[in-house]
Amino acid sequence: MQESDSPKLYNVAIVGATGVVGQQLLRILTTRSFPLGNLTLFASRRSAGKKITFGETEIEVEEIGPRSFRGVDLVFISATDEISRSVGQAAAKAGAVVIDDSGVWRMEANVPLVVPEVNPGDVAHHEGILAIPNCATTPIVMALWPLHKVNPVKRVVVATYQSVSGTGRAAVKELAEQTRRVLQNQRAAPHVYPHQIANNVLPEIGSFKDDGYTSEEWKVAVETRKIMHEPELAISATCVRVPVYVGHCAAVHAEFTSPMDAERAQALLLEAPGITVQDDTSISLYPQPKTSAGRDEVFVGRIRQDSSHPNGLVFWAVCDNLRKGAALNALQIAEEMISQGVI
Amino acid sequence: MQESDSPKLYNVAIVGATGVVGQQLLRILTTRSFPLGNLTLFASRRSAGKKITFGETEIEVEEIGPRSFRGVDLVFISATDEISRSVGQAAAKAGAVVIDDSGVWRMEANVPLVVPEVNPGDVAHHEGILAIPNCATTPIVMALWPLHKVNPVKRVVVATYQSVSGTGRAAVKELAEQTRRVLQNQRAAPHVYPHQIANNVLPEIGSFKDDGYTSEEWKVAVETRKIMHEPELAISATCVRVPVYVGHCAAVHAEFTSPMDAERAQALLLEAPGITVQDDTSISLYPQPKTSAGRDEVFVGRIRQDSSHPNGLVFWAVCDNLRKGAALNALQIAEEMISQGVI
Repeated sequence: MQESDSPKLYNVAIVGATGVVGQQLLRILTTRSFPLGNLTLFASRRSAGKKITFGETEIEVEEIGPRSFRGVDLVFISATDEISRSVGQAAAKAGAVVIDDSGVWRMEANVPLVVPEVNPGDVAHHEGILAIPNCATTPIVMALWPLHKVNPVKRVVVATYQSVSGTGRAAVKELAEQTRRVLQNQRAAPHVYPHQIANNVLPEIGSFKDDGYTSEEWKVAVETRKIMHEPELAISATCVRVPVYVGHCAAVHAEFTSPMDAERAQALLLEAPGITVQDDTSISLYPQPKTSAGRDEVFVGRIRQDSSHPNGLVFWAVCDNLRKGAALNALQIAEEMISQGVI
Repeated sequence: MQESDSPKLYNVAIVGATGVVGQQLLRILTTRSFPLGNLTLFASRRSAGKKITFGETEIEVEEIGPRSFRGVDLVFISATDEISRSVGQAAAKAGAVVIDDSGVWRMEANVPLVVPEVNPGDVAHHEGILAIPNCATTPIVMALWPLHKVNPVKRVVVATYQSVSGTGRAAVKELAEQTRRVLQNQRAAPHVYPHQIANNVLPEIGSFKDDGYTSEEWKVAVETRKIMHEPELAISATCVRVPVYVGHCAAVHAEFTSPMDAERAQALLLEAPGITVQDDTSISLYPQPKTSAGRDEVFVGRIRQDSSHPNGLVFWAVCDNLRKGAALNALQIAEEMISQGVI
C-alpha cells in the first residue's frame, strides 16, 4: 500500500465533550489511527473554560458561538435533544458533517442511521447529518444482522436490561449515592429517575406514548427496521432500567423465515465483524455488563433454539452502551465515510 | 355463619425455619387467622437451639429426628432439594401433609402444583405431598390466568428480572457485601454466584440443560403448563438475576387465541383475586420490586397490545418472591385444603 504524501486530516468538533459519551469518544480517539486535524471541544456554559486532557495535550472546553463550526469538517454531538436540533442544523449549514447521538434526526428520511457493520452503504446518502442509533438498538441489530442475511428475521421480541450511564452522568451519580444510602438503611430519594433505581428495576425509559409503549421501546423497533432496511419487520420491546453503571443487555427472542439451528447461528455470529461470541454454559461463560464495559465488541451468548416456536432462536446480547452503543459507533461512521470518500 | 364449638387446630412444622422463606412464613402466620395448634421449627444442625420469636412466644429451633413428625398435621418445607426429598417422603409417611417449596416434587404426577387463585381444585388430589411453584412462575401464571379464562393463551415469551433473595440468605449477604466493595472500588469476589452480582446482571439461574435453557427457564415453562392444565402451551423464558434484594419481575409477551385489547385485559386483571393493577403511565405508576417487597399481591402494569402480533399482549408483572412467590402461596394452599376439607 502506498501512502499519500499529505493525507487529508479532518478538523473535528465534539459537542458535549464533558458528558459520558463525549469523554468516551475522546478516549477512543486516542487509541485509533484517526486522521485528526484540529480538535475543538464544546460543552455547556457551566463547563466552558474547563481543561480536558487529550493524549499529551490539554484542550480548553468552549461554549458554542455563531462561528464555532468554521473550518470544522466533522461534528460529533452527544448532548441534549435541543442542542442536537439547533447545533446539528447550524453545523451542517456551516459545511460540516454532523454525526449525531440524539433521537432528533434518526428517523428523518434524509438522515442515514448507521451501524457500519450492518448498513455501511447508507453513509453515502447523507446531506450533512448522520445519526447513530439509540444505545439499546445497536446490540440487537448487530446480533440480528448476520443471521438475517442468511435467514430473514420475521419477528423480534426483546426485553432489555439497561444501565444508568445511558441516561448520563447525573444518573451514574444518583445510582452511586442511592446505593450508599440503601446500604445504610437511609431513604434514597430519586431525582433523575421517577423512582429509586438502586437495588430496584424500572420499566420506564424515555416517555410514554399513547399505545402504552415508551419512546425507548418505539426507538428499538423503528430504528432496527430502518438500519436493516426492513420496514415491515415486527418488533416488540420492553425496555427496563437496572442498577448497573455501564453495559446494556437484551434478551432477544427472534423468529426467522425457516428454522435456525443454534450451532449454525453461533457459527454465523463467530464470523461476524464486531461481535464476540461468549457462549460456554459449562463454565458459566456468557455476556455480562461487567465484562463488556470498556470493550468495543457486542457480546452474544445463551444462543439456543426457541422451544416455543419452530423457527425461533433466543440469545443474550450485551455491549458497552457508551462505546459501541454510542461513541465508538459514531467514530466508526466517520471512518467509514472517509474510507468511502464521502466526506 | 355458625362456629363449631371446637374448631380443628392444625399442628404445623416448618422445615427451614431460619431461611428467608421460613422467616417470611412465620411472619405471615402471625397476621392470618390460621387455625394453628402446635408449631415446631426445624433447621439444620447449625441453627438448632436458636430461639425464634413467634408472636409473643419464643420457639427453640430443633434438628430433624426420626420422630419429628409424630402428631404433625402439616409440614412446610423450604430448605435444600435433598431435605425436600428425604424429609418430604418421611413426613408424608408419618401421616402429615407436606407443602414443599423445592423443585423436587413439583412435576410428579401425584403431586398437585398449586396456585390457589388458579387451580384450587387440584389440592383435593394430593397423596401427602403438594408443591408450590418456583417463585418466577407464580407472578406469570397469576397474571395470565384471568386473561386465559376468556381468551386462551397460545404462546408466552418471558424475560425475568429476579432478586437475590430467591437464592437465599447467603446471596442477600453477598449482594450487600459486594455492593459495599464496588462503592469503594474494591474487587467484589463472587461466592454464591459464578460472577459478581452487585451492579451486574447474570443470565444464569439454576443449572444449564442440553438445549441451552437453564433449569429455571425450564421450570417457568413446565410449571405454568401444569398449573394451567395446558400441556401444549408454548413458553420460552430467559431468566436473569439482577442486583435487587426482594422482588421478581417479568416482562411478558403473550399471544392469545384472538386479539386482546389492553383495556379489556386491564379490566379482567382488576377483577382478579390476588392481583393489583398498577398502570398509570401518566404518573409513572407501574410495578417495581421496591414497592412490591413485603406485599402479598402480584402487581401488574405496562399493559399494552403487542405491536408485533395481532393477538399479542405485553405486560409487566412483579411480586415479592418470598411471599406470593413462596411462603404466602404455601400457606394459602393449606388454607384452601382446610376450606375444602381435604386435610
